[in-house]
Amino acid sequence: MYKIGIAGATGYTGVELLRILSRHPDVEIKTLTSETYKGKRIDEVFPTLRTFANQELVELDSHTSDGLDVLFLALPHTAAMDVVQRFLSQDCRIVDLSADYRLRNAQIFQEWYAVPHTQTELLKSAVYGLPELWRDAIKTANLVANPGCYPTSAILALAPLMQEGWVDVENIIVDSKSGVSGAGRKASQGTQYCEVNEGVSAYGAARHRHTPEIEQEISVLAGKELQITFTPHLMPMTRGILSTVYCRLMKETTSEKLVKHYQDYYDGEPFVRILPAGQFANTRYVSGSNFCDIGLQIDHRNDRVVVTSAIDNLVKGASGQAVQNMNIMLGLDEKTGLDFAPAFP
Amino acid sequence: MYKIGIAGATGYTGVELLRILSRHPDVEIKTLTSETYKGKRIDEVFPTLRTFANQELVELDSHTSDGLDVLFLALPHTAAMDVVQRFLSQDCRIVDLSADYRLRNAQIFQEWYAVPHTQTELLKSAVYGLPELWRDAIKTANLVANPGCYPTSAILALAPLMQEGWVDVENIIVDSKSGVSGAGRKASQGTQYCEVNEGVSAYGAARHRHTPEIEQEISVLAGKELQITFTPHLMPMTRGILSTVYCRLMKETTSEKLVKHYQDYYDGEPFVRILPAGQFANTRYVSGSNFCDIGLQIDHRNDRVVVTSAIDNLVKGASGQAVQNMNIMLGLDEKTGLDFAPAFP
Amino acid sequence: MYKIGIAGATGYTGVELLRILSRHPDVEIKTLTSETYKGKRIDEVFPTLRTFANQELVELDSHTSDGLDVLFLALPHTAAMDVVQRFLSQDCRIVDLSADYRLRNAQIFQEWYAVPHTQTELLKSAVYGLPELWRDAIKTANLVANPGCYPTSAILALAPLMQEGWVDVENIIVDSKSGVSGAGRKASQGTQYCEVNEGVSAYGAARHRHTPEIEQEISVLAGKELQITFTPHLMPMTRGILSTVYCRLMKETTSEKLVKHYQDYYDGEPFVRILPAGQFANTRYVSGSNFCDIGLQIDHRNDRVVVTSAIDNLVKGASGQAVQNMNIMLGLDEKTGLDFAPAFP
Amino acid sequence: MYKIGIAGATGYTGVELLRILSRHPDVEIKTLTSETYKGKRIDEVFPTLRTFANQELVELDSHTSDGLDVLFLALPHTAAMDVVQRFLSQDCRIVDLSADYRLRNAQIFQEWYAVPHTQTELLKSAVYGLPELWRDAIKTANLVANPGCYPTSAILALAPLMQEGWVDVENIIVDSKSGVSGAGRKASQGTQYCEVNEGVSAYGAARHRHTPEIEQEISVLAGKELQITFTPHLMPMTRGILSTVYCRLMKETTSEKLVKHYQDYYDGEPFVRILPAGQFANTRYVSGSNFCDIGLQIDHRNDRVVVTSAIDNLVKGASGQAVQNMNIMLGLDEKTGLDFAPAFP
Repeated sequence: MYKIGIAGATGYTGVELLRILSRHPDVEIKTLTSETYKGKRIDEVFPTLRTFANQELVELDSHTSDGLDVLFLALPHTAAMDVVQRFLSQDCRIVDLSADYRLRNAQIFQEWYAVPHTQTELLKSAVYGLPELWRDAIKTANLVANPGCYPTSAILALAPLMQEGWVDVENIIVDSKSGVSGAGRKASQGTQYCEVNEGVSAYGAARHRHTPEIEQEISVLAGKELQITFTPHLMPMTRGILSTVYCRLMKETTSEKLVKHYQDYYDGEPFVRILPAGQFANTRYVSGSNFCDIGLQIDHRNDRVVVTSAIDNLVKGASGQAVQNMNIMLGLDEKTGLDFAPAFP
Repeated sequence: MYKIGIAGATGYTGVELLRILSRHPDVEIKTLTSETYKGKRIDEVFPTLRTFANQELVELDSHTSDGLDVLFLALPHTAAMDVVQRFLSQDCRIVDLSADYRLRNAQIFQEWYAVPHTQTELLKSAVYGLPELWRDAIKTANLVANPGCYPTSAILALAPLMQEGWVDVENIIVDSKSGVSGAGRKASQGTQYCEVNEGVSAYGAARHRHTPEIEQEISVLAGKELQITFTPHLMPMTRGILSTVYCRLMKETTSEKLVKHYQDYYDGEPFVRILPAGQFANTRYVSGSNFCDIGLQIDHRNDRVVVTSAIDNLVKGASGQAVQNMNIMLGLDEKTGLDFAPAFP
Repeated sequence: MYKIGIAGATGYTGVELLRILSRHPDVEIKTLTSETYKGKRIDEVFPTLRTFANQELVELDSHTSDGLDVLFLALPHTAAMDVVQRFLSQDCRIVDLSADYRLRNAQIFQEWYAVPHTQTELLKSAVYGLPELWRDAIKTANLVANPGCYPTSAILALAPLMQEGWVDVENIIVDSKSGVSGAGRKASQGTQYCEVNEGVSAYGAARHRHTPEIEQEISVLAGKELQITFTPHLMPMTRGILSTVYCRLMKETTSEKLVKHYQDYYDGEPFVRILPAGQFANTRYVSGSNFCDIGLQIDHRNDRVVVTSAIDNLVKGASGQAVQNMNIMLGLDEKTGLDFAPAFP
Repeated sequence: MYKIGIAGATGYTGVELLRILSRHPDVEIKTLTSETYKGKRIDEVFPTLRTFANQELVELDSHTSDGLDVLFLALPHTAAMDVVQRFLSQDCRIVDLSADYRLRNAQIFQEWYAVPHTQTELLKSAVYGLPELWRDAIKTANLVANPGCYPTSAILALAPLMQEGWVDVENIIVDSKSGVSGAGRKASQGTQYCEVNEGVSAYGAARHRHTPEIEQEISVLAGKELQITFTPHLMPMTRGILSTVYCRLMKETTSEKLVKHYQDYYDGEPFVRILPAGQFANTRYVSGSNFCDIGLQIDHRNDRVVVTSAIDNLVKGASGQAVQNMNIMLGLDEKTGLDFAPAFP
């Protein structure tokens, strides 16, 4: 049994990690930290976990690794940055769910997050934890930067188009729609039920911090520096991200051929499901699971391809992907603990 | 008091017309038709209307105009087509909420609706009922084709950009998000509560019938034939459409200047509200009202403008706009009966 | 034009007052106060109000009545208590939407609100503002205590049964279901979208502060001191309260006869709608309106009557009823500004 | 591996059975029937099941048991009645999710379901599949009648009170609130998104068919014929039932003592969680799981106990309980395949 810790266990990604890990046959939850709820039991904070977990929450600060094999950092952005070194030096491998180690370029990090990166050496060793792109590097990584929810859905939708001249890579638009859980559990007026219900709105267009993360990854794939227009929207629902991606097609093709290309590209991937031509991805059909569903349509009148990808933002967009990364790091079957179907309805 | 009829009064646009007209000081509801509910009272079909309306529903077929001044046609597409002539010939003016008379080109109608247009002569006299563009023609029209919900939000968002070289008019993407009421009241599995809740999905990308309607209107404004990529999405909410419009900017400008341009363009318009630079339109803030809110952001890194527009699909997107058209046709103050604030929350 | 002020204009009852009053032909909004948003314009706080209201928010403390005819107090409980005297002394009449003046007995107030009532003299002159019960007293009142949302729905459901031996008045259960807007606009974790969505839960059973308010009013009607069991529940929706009331029947009767009794009891009431026998009240059918719909069923196997009543908690349960009270106080038609149908869907 | 079939696999209980069984280590899905979708693959009907199940749907009529060990009947009421004998005679054990074999008294069945029971002999051998009450009988049963969703929540809430004089068993009220999935997948106007959203309403008060089922079970526990008043309500949510149960207390006690009594009563039960005194059950905290959470409050002013119980209607209220029954019938660990935590948020 591997020993596991979660720092920041009382947010939505923390409780989702616990839901998933409570069924994982090869791990044992040893440490849960929370500054807000220290001294309380985790099942007092989350009644869903009654009979599954009852550890007492401790402060992160007073904590040493105590022989943990893997520590999940589910902390707010920038809070994880300086914690990492301490645990790494105690032979504890880390999956960081924050944004702190996702951008390889410290300069770009500073531009978008408005603080300098204090661990530029560590940054070099971090691996971007999207298994479909970086599986081999994840296997041996000590520090995995778990991707953002929007980037996961956008990059998986775009990756197969970034080579072979399929599309004009300089002209990409990503229009994403997210459930409210992506905003976290902290109370704020903007995520109150009555403010969100019956409301659809864009936010942070052209300046959302997930923009450079998407750009970084598709630039690697395309072999040149790319920029995209990315607009996130808040939806009146709890879970799910749908990304609708628009590209100018550069090849004569059909939806069927393009679907075949996507199927080949993701052949053998356990958590990517390519829909038949003409079908659209729907957040409803991935809810609670680690899948990314991808659908394709070609707008022949305008030589555009419209790709839709759907994930559960708390699973493939956060905690499920983190467990997938952990499995890879530990040499386990990548699907362990993640082999459950979406809930419907 | 003008005498008013509604053909197809028992759908969502019908009941919304009745909600609005029940407070209109200058009209009297004389005739309500329904094939499904004939013989029932309207407040038996819609308990919300108790104490406001209690007319008995009659069949459209057996009905002559009986001195109606204006008839609203809230019938399914193609059902309105052959009804119009009969009423026009009895000096009854018509606001048609279906799509039958929106496309001026009968050929294009046939391509998208898969049936020939049987009233091509009448089609020539129909006026597209978007008051912000065609107010003068509406005043004297006998047959007004009330715009579709998506086109209303998209055209109002795009109109100010269609001239003076603001944007590349050949490269326009409209990504729209709609509440479920746009699908009408008829029971279908796809709009069952459990199928829609927590689900966000695109549908009909690149082939939705509102596409040529948007193209027709912006082509007039731009002075050349344009085509767009239009992707509608279904949202888990009852009312509201948010359209997110993407255009390549061709001028050096700022969000503030562009906001000013929009304010000037819509100066004096009672139902268009331009948001301050940096704010996004939100369906939550127009719910139940006849407003179209428009927000603008410039993505300077990519020379793109992102325009968001929000309407209540049943009001400005259907019945409210129909009453606005009626007011104009009858020479009344355009705001009569529509002067109510959105409900919040 | 009467001059109107709203103290605490930036909560949900405040914005709902403004929505209603913006269409009221006989009033002019002169003063809006807010401690949190002072210095801002009201339409900056509530974008829905753009083009309807643009007053600057001022502090209540620095404010004198300035010739206001009526002041609405939409303040948190206990905050209104000491403000009242100051305005009354300046010939400004008051509709208090807080609970501070609803309980006639200062002792009972203290038991349930855990603070002493500091204005026991004023308490004697306050009138409980349920027009269906106290219309005559409201006409001449200087201080009207606007009823709570739950009490409005429960008392209107129970009132016709409190006399003539219809039911065992000592054995009453009220099970109420409320939308989230009743909790106010202040951010709290319990009313975050993700905590409420898909969640139904009771809260405060047997100790909710609206209990003595219901008991007070039905005791007056029954002519003896009554106690009830009251259980409120939070529902995943924005607006609406449904109360399901259970009483033991003491008379042989039918649903039809009982409906007739309710119709007679509420004969002429503009905002109470008694449903035909066998129909159930539904919050969906009163949304946005000032109506209370009441439906009745008899459980003959158990000699029980089940009464369901539905209101919009922000209208008949708060701001609509407050305007109804203001109309009565000012000698206006009681329906002025409130003559709108519910929105459906 | 046990061979399993599902008759009526394309409703919500069918897809939920498949979600659960897809992770069950001891069973193999051999047969799925559907009249509506015969010839299609199950993952074409339910995209959630892609990569989990791809069986072709066959007609029930043409089907023999083919060595099935257990057949789940997820058919509409009365459709299951005459199918049972055929499969039993082929040594196939049955878990019937319909109501056809729940009521032991054929006369009462006929009164509430308005059709005669055609299999009165079989009815005698059926076991009511609530494991907490009838575990031993389920072990050897060939035909298990899986309880209704409302009865599961109501009976579990009431059972500990039915003996030892805790409450007045002749004076019980059950007020239940259900998500929409309980109404099934078939399209109907009443369960369309726009009709349900923002709507709370009672239905079928005093005549809902789950009434005699609750009465039957608590009568057995109490040792005398009992009748209850039962009012179901429809909530704007997909999953979950909350039952609020009201009883007159006959003993002097405290919430703490009563909680202790419930804990003792359900000691060792894997799927019943008794909440600490003062906490209320919440559907949000059992969603997707097989748990029934029960909370207790005493209204000392009125000598009443208010019990709240929460289940996921599709899991403990249907398919999860069906698998629990199957596990018991097959001698497996009762929790197999059901050992997952609720999803939150």
